[in-house]
Amino acid sequence: MSSSLGKRFVVTTFGESHGRTVGAVVDGCPPGIPVTEAIVQRQLDRRRPGQSRLTSPRREADRVSLLSGVEKGLTLGSPIALMVENTNLRPADYEALSAIPRPSHADFTTRMKYGLAASSGGGRASARETVGRVAAGAIAEQMLSVLHGVDIVAWVSAIGPIEAHTPDVTALQRRQVDAVPVRCPDRSAAGDMTALIEKMKAEGDSIGGVITCVCRHLPCGWGEPVFDKLSALLAHAMLSIPAAKGFEIGSGFAGARMRGSLHNDLFVRKGKRLGTVTNHSGGIQGGISNGEPVVFRVAFKPAASISQAQATADYQGRPAILRLKGRHDPCVLPRAVPVVEAMAALVLADAALRHFPPRKTTPL
Amino acid sequence: MSSSLGKRFVVTTFGESHGRTVGAVVDGCPPGIPVTEAIVQRQLDRRRPGQSRLTSPRREADRVSLLSGVEKGLTLGSPIALMVENTNLRPADYEALSAIPRPSHADFTTRMKYGLAASSGGGRASARETVGRVAAGAIAEQMLSVLHGVDIVAWVSAIGPIEAHTPDVTALQRRQVDAVPVRCPDRSAAGDMTALIEKMKAEGDSIGGVITCVCRHLPCGWGEPVFDKLSALLAHAMLSIPAAKGFEIGSGFAGARMRGSLHNDLFVRKGKRLGTVTNHSGGIQGGISNGEPVVFRVAFKPAASISQAQATADYQGRPAILRLKGRHDPCVLPRAVPVVEAMAALVLADAALRHFPPRKTTPL
Amino acid sequence: MSSSLGKRFVVTTFGESHGRTVGAVVDGCPPGIPVTEAIVQRQLDRRRPGQSRLTSPRREADRVSLLSGVEKGLTLGSPIALMVENTNLRPADYEALSAIPRPSHADFTTRMKYGLAASSGGGRASARETVGRVAAGAIAEQMLSVLHGVDIVAWVSAIGPIEAHTPDVTALQRRQVDAVPVRCPDRSAAGDMTALIEKMKAEGDSIGGVITCVCRHLPCGWGEPVFDKLSALLAHAMLSIPAAKGFEIGSGFAGARMRGSLHNDLFVRKGKRLGTVTNHSGGIQGGISNGEPVVFRVAFKPAASISQAQATADYQGRPAILRLKGRHDPCVLPRAVPVVEAMAALVLADAALRHFPPRKTTPL
Amino acid sequence: MSSSLGKRFVVTTFGESHGRTVGAVVDGCPPGIPVTEAIVQRQLDRRRPGQSRLTSPRREADRVSLLSGVEKGLTLGSPIALMVENTNLRPADYEALSAIPRPSHADFTTRMKYGLAASSGGGRASARETVGRVAAGAIAEQMLSVLHGVDIVAWVSAIGPIEAHTPDVTALQRRQVDAVPVRCPDRSAAGDMTALIEKMKAEGDSIGGVITCVCRHLPCGWGEPVFDKLSALLAHAMLSIPAAKGFEIGSGFAGARMRGSLHNDLFVRKGKRLGTVTNHSGGIQGGISNGEPVVFRVAFKPAASISQAQATADYQGRPAILRLKGRHDPCVLPRAVPVVEAMAALVLADAALRHFPPRKTTPL
Repeated sequence: MSSSLGKRFVVTTFGESHGRTVGAVVDGCPPGIPVTEAIVQRQLDRRRPGQSRLTSPRREADRVSLLSGVEKGLTLGSPIALMVENTNLRPADYEALSAIPRPSHADFTTRMKYGLAASSGGGRASARETVGRVAAGAIAEQMLSVLHGVDIVAWVSAIGPIEAHTPDVTALQRRQVDAVPVRCPDRSAAGDMTALIEKMKAEGDSIGGVITCVCRHLPCGWGEPVFDKLSALLAHAMLSIPAAKGFEIGSGFAGARMRGSLHNDLFVRKGKRLGTVTNHSGGIQGGISNGEPVVFRVAFKPAASISQAQATADYQGRPAILRLKGRHDPCVLPRAVPVVEAMAALVLADAALRHFPPRKTTPL
Repeated sequence: MSSSLGKRFVVTTFGESHGRTVGAVVDGCPPGIPVTEAIVQRQLDRRRPGQSRLTSPRREADRVSLLSGVEKGLTLGSPIALMVENTNLRPADYEALSAIPRPSHADFTTRMKYGLAASSGGGRASARETVGRVAAGAIAEQMLSVLHGVDIVAWVSAIGPIEAHTPDVTALQRRQVDAVPVRCPDRSAAGDMTALIEKMKAEGDSIGGVITCVCRHLPCGWGEPVFDKLSALLAHAMLSIPAAKGFEIGSGFAGARMRGSLHNDLFVRKGKRLGTVTNHSGGIQGGISNGEPVVFRVAFKPAASISQAQATADYQGRPAILRLKGRHDPCVLPRAVPVVEAMAALVLADAALRHFPPRKTTPL
Repeated sequence: MSSSLGKRFVVTTFGESHGRTVGAVVDGCPPGIPVTEAIVQRQLDRRRPGQSRLTSPRREADRVSLLSGVEKGLTLGSPIALMVENTNLRPADYEALSAIPRPSHADFTTRMKYGLAASSGGGRASARETVGRVAAGAIAEQMLSVLHGVDIVAWVSAIGPIEAHTPDVTALQRRQVDAVPVRCPDRSAAGDMTALIEKMKAEGDSIGGVITCVCRHLPCGWGEPVFDKLSALLAHAMLSIPAAKGFEIGSGFAGARMRGSLHNDLFVRKGKRLGTVTNHSGGIQGGISNGEPVVFRVAFKPAASISQAQATADYQGRPAILRLKGRHDPCVLPRAVPVVEAMAALVLADAALRHFPPRKTTPL
Repeated sequence: MSSSLGKRFVVTTFGESHGRTVGAVVDGCPPGIPVTEAIVQRQLDRRRPGQSRLTSPRREADRVSLLSGVEKGLTLGSPIALMVENTNLRPADYEALSAIPRPSHADFTTRMKYGLAASSGGGRASARETVGRVAAGAIAEQMLSVLHGVDIVAWVSAIGPIEAHTPDVTALQRRQVDAVPVRCPDRSAAGDMTALIEKMKAEGDSIGGVITCVCRHLPCGWGEPVFDKLSALLAHAMLSIPAAKGFEIGSGFAGARMRGSLHNDLFVRKGKRLGTVTNHSGGIQGGISNGEPVVFRVAFKPAASISQAQATADYQGRPAILRLKGRHDPCVLPRAVPVVEAMAALVLADAALRHFPPRKTTPL
């Protein structure tokens, strides 16, 4: 099923949304990195349902247990297994799904691929699988922070048609993002976003949006020049998040409309390093980090699970009306912010361990 | 350097743009697939420079040699090595690059990562590396066509601000795409695009754009549910193409603006299979192909190599004016069409070989 | 740390011998395979310490918990996580190890590689790590049995200088092997072996030996022709078991003394298949299974942990006398039998999933 | 087909014995390592047929061409492709093989696995595939020598029942091994071995043997503690060599007969490092190099291709007499010496690149 990501910093997630546990194993984390359950819990709490009225009313404590790989608060260099128990199982909600596949969900394709399915329909396709990602990402962040001084901040930059102003990506902090439940640091846009999400909730509908993420203080040299460009690895990781539909690095699709003479990032001395005047490249040139902030955006579709009745078909192709009960988020974006950060951290931790600094480089 | 892609249908490319050869090894192609040099050459000819006045005047014959893995016109199941000699070397064009890194190119990051660089500057980051991809992709396409009836067509859907009308993705053929040098099947838009590219050429500038690609007749079930979603693998492959800046599947960034009740692809019987009324999912749900056409878009930035003078800095950070000679494409999009098709074919061939059809699935 | 094995049927183990748990994640098991905790427990019970007076007096229940991937007694196709809690921790036994590395153990190399070490000395090098292997192997065995009818039996064929007669490898059953605690089906040799092991125990010493393993009813075609020959994968897996020092397939080192005219396995019709008269090849030719039983042998050194005083050196290189307390097996062979079977099962399950039967083969 | 080995220093070989070329791509070699065609050729010349009357009379120049990855005598950090043309094709010799599979050869299993076969019978199973391994190994040796001071020497230690005395493994040089065609530095045994091989040749028969290999000056810390123990990786690599049947590290099968009190390698200060008095561990403890010489042995069966008539069966299972023409080595051991060295170098180069020295280790 390929539940692993990474070549040197390898995460493997496990668990069905309605089974006993969800969790992950992180293999490849260097020894001596400070990791505790509290550190991991902090990011899980940001992903947890029931944080605000904007999110699903499912209330799961999502307490993480570290099973191995850590002793006296430090990593040992051995695999770090961690798990979260599923405490809030309500399989009855999912009974109707045995006859009618949810539109734009993984029910149908999962059943076609595996011939059977977990009770919850899409099984591993559930957003609950991202618990393991966020926990593993918290470990990756520790490594990146301690060994390299890298930090990562993501935020909601659009909900439906509402687009936020771009903040100063060199200064934005997570506490600014978390200051409002919708996780958009532009207070004005955040208000409109909140209203829109509440409207969707009231109408039994859902809405998509965009998350932007910045990764700062990467050294020059991360990423591989051909197939494993840092941008390609980020695209891979982001499109693996449930509901993700698009990815762009730096100027992205807007850059496709530009001329080279305006798009090129001219070089300029920045203290002891060679920097660029603009950052249309999004911190990556030729697939390799260039020392500028890595900035990318991820598009999320509106959640497929809505409570409005849907005129669809059953597995036999007969017309059928689907009325979902369950407990669904009208908008996944606020809770997806720590997931995007986690996936970025996993990619960067792997890239860091794959890079060998050369014995000598051109000094400035 | 990670010059390989795929887990079962594995391509490894090799070669510097200004060394002796470029090429690839394809490992994992099943035995008995018809492959000849002529079949591979056909796609290489579509990638070749000098096809029209819209592309670089470099004239390289780019004749492919199959070195192994094929006997009597059929694959043996063993690795297929192939190479193309570099015949048109003009290293003098690149001399200036030893002092000044080209803006938004891989010169600087390559030197920082490796401590030295091939004569051509970015070395492996050159677009010439895609020769190996296109050749390998032609073999993947043969496998997909013979074993599964899958076909793939890409086209230029935007150049700068000019956007083409969307063609009927279920019917579009390559010959329609190739009917105009700019490879856009919308004749009206194609005219404007051509004019814009010629303007860029005259001004020593470059322009970006978007390529759209459709992959048809995939069975339901390709792609893995967690990290290796088919959409994630496609995003990875597309962002690994030089100059690619964005990827979107199905509704993509536009889908992020929509409500779930409008975005959801309702099911409907289509002959013997369960299909969907709309295809905002782009043929992939929960990371797994659902039997509808897979449709995605790739954003390309304007080529970094322009002949206009650029006020940048040298490796020491001192202000410097860069005047590139060389022979550069004002727009890489037309020649990138077969590269996008090749990368799609490599991803799908790998996904096909990773999928085990279950012993029984829910019949319609 | 590379705690994973396999390309399609992938096992990842985790856990330190003196941490909270040991366990494994199995990713890639096809859906619909019967797997329960009882089935896994059966093999764990054969590996468990304290089974007889021949083994370590550590008494650990080693109860397995299936955390994911199984529902209603059948695999889902998703990752199967399982764990066993460590209940019998006695870290005090290991205190002396902080100053003096145990000879021929992993204490020294682990500390040199990681710069720190888990409390138990070698950390992951402990035989306790094999709990995860045995549990995962039990799942692999289920898949092999249900889908392919393959079975696997290993036994102790030598302890120190005492060599058992070779049984009929086509008929031997596990219950015959388990009939005596030393797990040697040759009753006469088993008696001598038992006496030798008890002598070692009395003298605070240890003794090595050889385990032979047969895998039956493999179809022709498993294994890859070049680097991943089935024999190479088995050698890899067996030498990864703690204390393993040698591997031979079929005739092995004895075959190195033979002439080709005597060693070659001549073909002969066996019912509906082409078989061989002899089986010096050990069921594998050119790295690929040929339909005959796969037979191999694994050499184990005497356990490094002995209670006799040892005149060695401390980490500073100063002469020191090491007196180990702890609870040690005088001979690991009887308990290593299910470990060898598990590793064989993991290799074969992976080989089975990597093999594509060709569309047509030469019929007999 | 899995024609690749390694995770960071990755070699992929290609080519059929009777196709146009054989060769390899090495991906992952660091930049700045001196590599030339002459350096690679040196090892290929030691593998080449027709070196002496002990080997096959096939006379192939086996001239290597470096196709990429090297500029001005130094590696670039990019993939190094190399190839050797097949000049001495005599397909007629192999015609009989279409009806009767050669006993103990890969003809039968290859046909069963792939449904068709290359003209030469076993296709990729040919010893000619090792050309790519030896060439890639020469590059690995350069890296190991330049970056780490590691050297590797293998020699023939047994032919049939004739066993050579063990040389001083800390001092043995390749020129001593190459001083006699049979590549055994024990002159007395070498004479008997030569006579035995010539006898086999006269009788149209073949003979097996053992190659021993020592790898010196490894730092402490190479190899991974669980599945990718250095000993396991070496076993994998060695058993992937055609005709290899067994592997042992250090004391190996002889160690299985010993007591722990005699087998344990007691620690002792050796200059600035902690060494061991004996080396039954073969330089590897817990899967990790300990600073002592790595010593292992590989058993080779007698070559399957003999000119004596063999009473076997055809593909339909009917009794048939096989009389091979072709040109065959009565003993593959002398030519396999550089193959063993190459495989050892490939494993060590990969292990070197996978190891991260910890930030601090226990100083002596």
